[in-house]
Amino acid sequence: MKLSQLFTKTQKQDPRDEESKGARLLVRAGFVHKEVAGVYSWLPLGFIVLRNIEQIVREEMNALGASELQMTTLQPKDIWEQTDRWSDKAIDVWFKTKLHNGTELGLAPTHEEPMTAIVREYAQSYKDLPILAYQFQWKMRNELRAKSGVMRGREFRMKDLYSFAATQEQHDKIYAQVKATYERIYERLGIGKDTLYTYASGGMFSRFSHEFQTILEVGEDVIHIDDKRHVAVNEELTDDKEALAEAGLNDSKLRSANAAEVGNIFPLGTKYSEALGATFTDEDGMVHPMIMGSYGIGVSRLVGVLAEYFSDDSGLVWPEAVAPAKIHIVQIGDKTEVATAAEKIYADLEKAGISVLFDDRDLSAGAKFADADLIGCPTRVTVSEKTLAKQSAEVKHRMEENAKLIDLSKLTTTFTS
Amino acid sequence: MKLSQLFTKTQKQDPRDEESKGARLLVRAGFVHKEVAGVYSWLPLGFIVLRNIEQIVREEMNALGASELQMTTLQPKDIWEQTDRWSDKAIDVWFKTKLHNGTELGLAPTHEEPMTAIVREYAQSYKDLPILAYQFQWKMRNELRAKSGVMRGREFRMKDLYSFAATQEQHDKIYAQVKATYERIYERLGIGKDTLYTYASGGMFSRFSHEFQTILEVGEDVIHIDDKRHVAVNEELTDDKEALAEAGLNDSKLRSANAAEVGNIFPLGTKYSEALGATFTDEDGMVHPMIMGSYGIGVSRLVGVLAEYFSDDSGLVWPEAVAPAKIHIVQIGDKTEVATAAEKIYADLEKAGISVLFDDRDLSAGAKFADADLIGCPTRVTVSEKTLAKQSAEVKHRMEENAKLIDLSKLTTTFTS
Repeated sequence: MKLSQLFTKTQKQDPRDEESKGARLLVRAGFVHKEVAGVYSWLPLGFIVLRNIEQIVREEMNALGASELQMTTLQPKDIWEQTDRWSDKAIDVWFKTKLHNGTELGLAPTHEEPMTAIVREYAQSYKDLPILAYQFQWKMRNELRAKSGVMRGREFRMKDLYSFAATQEQHDKIYAQVKATYERIYERLGIGKDTLYTYASGGMFSRFSHEFQTILEVGEDVIHIDDKRHVAVNEELTDDKEALAEAGLNDSKLRSANAAEVGNIFPLGTKYSEALGATFTDEDGMVHPMIMGSYGIGVSRLVGVLAEYFSDDSGLVWPEAVAPAKIHIVQIGDKTEVATAAEKIYADLEKAGISVLFDDRDLSAGAKFADADLIGCPTRVTVSEKTLAKQSAEVKHRMEENAKLIDLSKLTTTFTS
Repeated sequence: MKLSQLFTKTQKQDPRDEESKGARLLVRAGFVHKEVAGVYSWLPLGFIVLRNIEQIVREEMNALGASELQMTTLQPKDIWEQTDRWSDKAIDVWFKTKLHNGTELGLAPTHEEPMTAIVREYAQSYKDLPILAYQFQWKMRNELRAKSGVMRGREFRMKDLYSFAATQEQHDKIYAQVKATYERIYERLGIGKDTLYTYASGGMFSRFSHEFQTILEVGEDVIHIDDKRHVAVNEELTDDKEALAEAGLNDSKLRSANAAEVGNIFPLGTKYSEALGATFTDEDGMVHPMIMGSYGIGVSRLVGVLAEYFSDDSGLVWPEAVAPAKIHIVQIGDKTEVATAAEKIYADLEKAGISVLFDDRDLSAGAKFADADLIGCPTRVTVSEKTLAKQSAEVKHRMEENAKLIDLSKLTTTFTS
């Protein structure tokens, strides 16, 4: 992508209404645009990052054997009344609206009810189970406060996976597989080391629900970490000695840290399947409600977490797997010779399947370098009269001080091999 | 994808609450699930078709040089008040909701206002123009009635492109490019022949807006067609002799037909840019409002149109470009020899990058053939003891009566070459 064709621009000034560093950088770099507190439009560069994260999550969901579908934002009242979750007391973040004839609709904050209602139509036998189905959805949650940028949104992108099993054993196996899948996702995103499987309360049918928490100064949660086992417990549970014992944790040996939730897993038991009649017939002809689980990852929230986690005073520092582009070409000066060489590098890299931002704008070298640092692609390639005098381009990694000259003839293969 | 892993099943009975053939087939084949009238979840097979259409549109938008972004469903009141479109009188399909503190929010039925508000922040000079930006979005429209399946939804997927130009000449050039792009999209979807550029009223700053209408028995519009020029005029305009003359049409020589709108183009002039202050400075330092256009394609609606357009008594008949899979393998019987051969064909085709549905379920040949016809992939490959006796598989195209045996060793290359 040529920056001359990108309609966004970077901003020198921090926005006044963003509290976290990551959110300020995402706004300054032109990745997101605030519409309402907690409601952000995703501008071209930010949307690429969001979709890159989404693709990693999608690949891992598909590897689990889960089917992707797309449920709706508008929700009918009846299925939520059947599970006792229609009222604002049961779900305090509902947005509600109405058809012209007065029929109330809700804006889905989560999708257990519609998912269960779909599955009950198609699955009746133990032979149809297990079922794993997931979607990416802009969830709507009427949060009282929303001040952490894209890390806590009122309209935020979530991957939600649901599982339907015939036996507890089948459910437990899926649960363990999803846990391993989540760990692989955080590993691929570069935050595996600081992301901990965390015991939390809120399990309806087991003592715990489980979160994945990434250690982060601006995180909204506090977790207590067992570094040796690489697990943690949410602060809310640290007074519950029995729970700690069950999790095999000893509070006196844990260190505490701020953290941001980047995923959660809920064992749902049969609460929804019983209420909505999602039952199956077993081998002996007996009818049972399905055993369910739900598994969330906030993918837009992850953009905020990565922006906090990977950034410095100069700007964002994206891991290669999610960066808006792998290479950021900076053309210095507008001499024909330089422009031609830069264009050729751009074309060659794109042809080799490498994603590139090409700063072909009429700006000073200093302004272009500052933008490259702010936008945060992993590698900068600079082309100038000076580098061309040595048949070279200058290559510098975002987090390294030193640059080196690479011969033009070897440039593309440097990045493909 | 193996059908044994797909959680949806086909239904023999037509749903009682769908009026159009396409909608009935989409429900029976397990492509969509109705949540509320005009609000459909997209089940795995339907979601693949929707995304295939979306990808074709995306490729064509990118070829135009447009940038993809993602705006929000939740909308603040102020920008819509500035353009006088907040009231239900101005937009009669608003859904509205509220924050806990009472602040009203709208659910975006379209995005001219937020798009203009974003562009005004980043573009100030004629050098920044033109700008072309687009998104895919689940639009929310509180339609009084919604009875045409996915063809007229209350929550429907739309590609909306917006253009911002410095001069009328620049705008006209973009407008012509988008028109050509739309024609290419309908061509790629297989409906080019019966999709007509149609003059319609509703232009605010020019006599006409323009629609693309696909001739379809169940279409909600009536158009009058000039077959020779391959253009049409919406019935609402046929009494306006002056308009017809301007469009170069003679009503007495037109034939009328039912049609479904599959795209529209609105010249917006400076209505939104003036109201929202999206201005630029020209070469002489003079300030002007930008000249805008908006260009929509209802991608979920297109699934409904294609389902109507390409179907017969046995089911759906997807064009290869959008089909849930190119090949539908039917394994007949569960003999090890047959299962092994079918698995190998499945693996070989997937490895060759060809999308495949593999019916590995424990069902009769008749049930499997009926499902293959209902789901509507372009090519069926049947493997049975009988075909294996001749070292072959039977290949049949969805719309052809006759099948032919293809040697197993040549099967993959038949589909790749």
